[in-house]
Amino acid sequence: MDIALLNNDTIVALATPQGIGAIGVIRLSGEEAIAICEKVFATKNLRKKDLNKQASHTIHFGVIREGDILIDEVLVSLFKAPNSYTGENIVEISCHGSKFIQQQIIQLLIKQGARLANQGEFTLRAFLNGKLDLSQAEAVADLIASNSSTSHQVAIQQMRGGFSNKIKLLRQNLIDFASLIELELDFSEEDVEFADRSDLKKLVSSIQRIVQRLIDSFEVGNVIKNGIPVAIVGKPNAGKSTLLNVLLEEDRAIVSEIPGTTRDVIEDELNIDGVLFRIIDTAGIRNTTDIIESIGVEKTFEQIKLSSITIYLFDAHEMTTSELEIEIEELQLHLHNSQLVLVANKIDKEDEEYIRREFSEFPNVLFISAKERFYIDDLKKHFIKLFDDRIINITETVVTNTRHVEALRHTNSSLIRIFDGLNHNVTGDFLAMDIRQALHHLGVITGEISSDDLLANIFSKFCIGK
Amino acid sequence: MDIALLNNDTIVALATPQGIGAIGVIRLSGEEAIAICEKVFATKNLRKKDLNKQASHTIHFGVIREGDILIDEVLVSLFKAPNSYTGENIVEISCHGSKFIQQQIIQLLIKQGARLANQGEFTLRAFLNGKLDLSQAEAVADLIASNSSTSHQVAIQQMRGGFSNKIKLLRQNLIDFASLIELELDFSEEDVEFADRSDLKKLVSSIQRIVQRLIDSFEVGNVIKNGIPVAIVGKPNAGKSTLLNVLLEEDRAIVSEIPGTTRDVIEDELNIDGVLFRIIDTAGIRNTTDIIESIGVEKTFEQIKLSSITIYLFDAHEMTTSELEIEIEELQLHLHNSQLVLVANKIDKEDEEYIRREFSEFPNVLFISAKERFYIDDLKKHFIKLFDDRIINITETVVTNTRHVEALRHTNSSLIRIFDGLNHNVTGDFLAMDIRQALHHLGVITGEISSDDLLANIFSKFCIGK
Repeated sequence: MDIALLNNDTIVALATPQGIGAIGVIRLSGEEAIAICEKVFATKNLRKKDLNKQASHTIHFGVIREGDILIDEVLVSLFKAPNSYTGENIVEISCHGSKFIQQQIIQLLIKQGARLANQGEFTLRAFLNGKLDLSQAEAVADLIASNSSTSHQVAIQQMRGGFSNKIKLLRQNLIDFASLIELELDFSEEDVEFADRSDLKKLVSSIQRIVQRLIDSFEVGNVIKNGIPVAIVGKPNAGKSTLLNVLLEEDRAIVSEIPGTTRDVIEDELNIDGVLFRIIDTAGIRNTTDIIESIGVEKTFEQIKLSSITIYLFDAHEMTTSELEIEIEELQLHLHNSQLVLVANKIDKEDEEYIRREFSEFPNVLFISAKERFYIDDLKKHFIKLFDDRIINITETVVTNTRHVEALRHTNSSLIRIFDGLNHNVTGDFLAMDIRQALHHLGVITGEISSDDLLANIFSKFCIGK
Repeated sequence: MDIALLNNDTIVALATPQGIGAIGVIRLSGEEAIAICEKVFATKNLRKKDLNKQASHTIHFGVIREGDILIDEVLVSLFKAPNSYTGENIVEISCHGSKFIQQQIIQLLIKQGARLANQGEFTLRAFLNGKLDLSQAEAVADLIASNSSTSHQVAIQQMRGGFSNKIKLLRQNLIDFASLIELELDFSEEDVEFADRSDLKKLVSSIQRIVQRLIDSFEVGNVIKNGIPVAIVGKPNAGKSTLLNVLLEEDRAIVSEIPGTTRDVIEDELNIDGVLFRIIDTAGIRNTTDIIESIGVEKTFEQIKLSSITIYLFDAHEMTTSELEIEIEELQLHLHNSQLVLVANKIDKEDEEYIRREFSEFPNVLFISAKERFYIDDLKKHFIKLFDDRIINITETVVTNTRHVEALRHTNSSLIRIFDGLNHNVTGDFLAMDIRQALHHLGVITGEISSDDLLANIFSKFCIGK
């Protein structure tokens, strides 16, 4: 995508997913959108209709035709600039959900002067026309990709400008600060200090603390977006795959209340109360034969290292307490940042009270029967508890985007340099340089500062039609 | 689907295909559609909006929310009864193309009193509310499934009532006829003949001819809908797979002008100038090793028997004319209704003129080079010519639906019985019985006569949301 080539031409694309469905929506955006649609649209009785004279936000029933050949009966929705997603004239043609028909209509609109849209070009135009800032535009893509209520909440907050407002406020604070410093520079020969240095230090350090908190939130943001990595390990007969199936099955049952949705479910993602957990390399976990003596196997250690939570599952009536102690010791060598959860399985096989007493010396053992589905809810609650413990108040702003966290890290470095500068009484012009850098990096997040390459990179990740 | 249970409750379903896209559309239909949407809809600034007071065919920007939790920014389109697809109040919610969001919104609407729609239930309601007759409703499903311009044209004509009008006209003619006969019955004791028997015979025979023509059109209709079956046979070294690839590739190149559409292309369907050709069992054809000495192999004969066109491909510089004669003789034993096309391949390898002269005794040989793509267009034109020859003027009404052709065959039997009856001077009451049967069968097509089972069967083939 060559941003430099962007202009006011009218773009067209299918806005709904490919595939057969009841309806599909084709979207046109640009100055000529309504005029182009008018050329191929007629009323049900094949009369012309002056769409340009119709009000914005109205819907018109009719047909799309090429000469005498009818292509489809459609609904045409009109959105007049600037009251549309892109800020341009938009026409949405709602046709039957047939790929053939959709292709015919798109080809026809191209013949009439529209151009097939690039990926993300509708949202890019929304950005260029000031309808969204850059971080809001990015949130649109996140929103579409979101698959749990937490990732969804973070994305929708960001799309509605929550994050942008925070960044803009920080930027405004810095600009206020900068203007004081710049004023000093103007009068530098007179050696006046307009800005009280200790007040400045307080201001910078408060900004820096907020930036740091945003950077720290990325760890949470990342797991919210991609799922919390969980490793389930244990000996071959511990019941790992039964447990996994029980967890996945219950999850899937919820999903499939809407018929037809299970098709795309990624097997090894667990959605518990709206929080996404991701099982690492379950192929390995499921195929238990190759991890006999799994503790000690390289692969399992890798799984543990990559995870935030490690479930150690064991067969409660085969495992002795001394054996368990050894296992835990060995596991702890490999946990890194992963939290260990001990889960005793198969409590249905023996007297439950006896088992609970036997392992009472280990304070944090959960007792379940995967096969009989005993205490599975408790286990799930524990997952959520671990997630909550790991931080999080998602009503606070959470950074989920690598590009944003990078920009914040650069901002932070500049802020630390400013703070050091203030401590060492460097002159205003040095401070001003760092302030300008900090402002630059914050501006990159919302797109007040942007380059063609950056935009191309961001919008190429969108689907066509968005 | 229990038709008897249908009522005015409000139904909801995703109307766009599953999958990630820019937008998805959720459709609500029923008396409470607008009221239910209002409960979860708010303006962008989170104020309530009285959707019921808004005009039909208008679009409203805002958010869907559950309490304080925002689910998405959406566009809501209103269609007020009876001016909608179903004839009921309809609300279409255009949300972001995320499965997660769509599920959330649908679940929320269900909580507020909507019910998840059955397959085809929107169109069923359109039928029950008199917005479409049954054959038009069936055409909606055909239209969505259509994948060539011919199948599309037939479906759209049918959807717009072309076929229904023809059937209704036939029915009206029969009713006029019946009323004369019934009148006779009323005065049967007086032994009067209100209807001139020879006029009656003319009328019945003209109706019967039209019905017969419609029945005959089913052969075409069926190939239009499902593609014309083509078998490509020949010895292993003849170049069958090269030819197939050349044909499919060119076809695919057209399709892929719209990015992202190739994914679902069925490999062995050829769309030539809007006519669909279907290659039978090309797995067998491609895997040439198992059809060495292919002529003579059971499988190949089956392919030929199932096809409308048989391409016999041979290597022009390996095949002798006497050999070819033998091959043709053997092929002809198995052609049944399939048309044979002889295609000489690899004409690039030798002097073209020489080859053409060599096979000049065979009047209908096409000469190509699959490898060099010589004369491929001529071959394609020949495919189309064969299609045209096999009949067809698709501006005439074509029957594509097995259910319709069955009803027409029953109608035809009744008409023939009436005609015979007239010839044998049977009494009016016998004629009337057959007329009523003919009327019944015609009525079944448009749904003037229908049963719950029939409706359930038809609409269960639809997708949810249609």
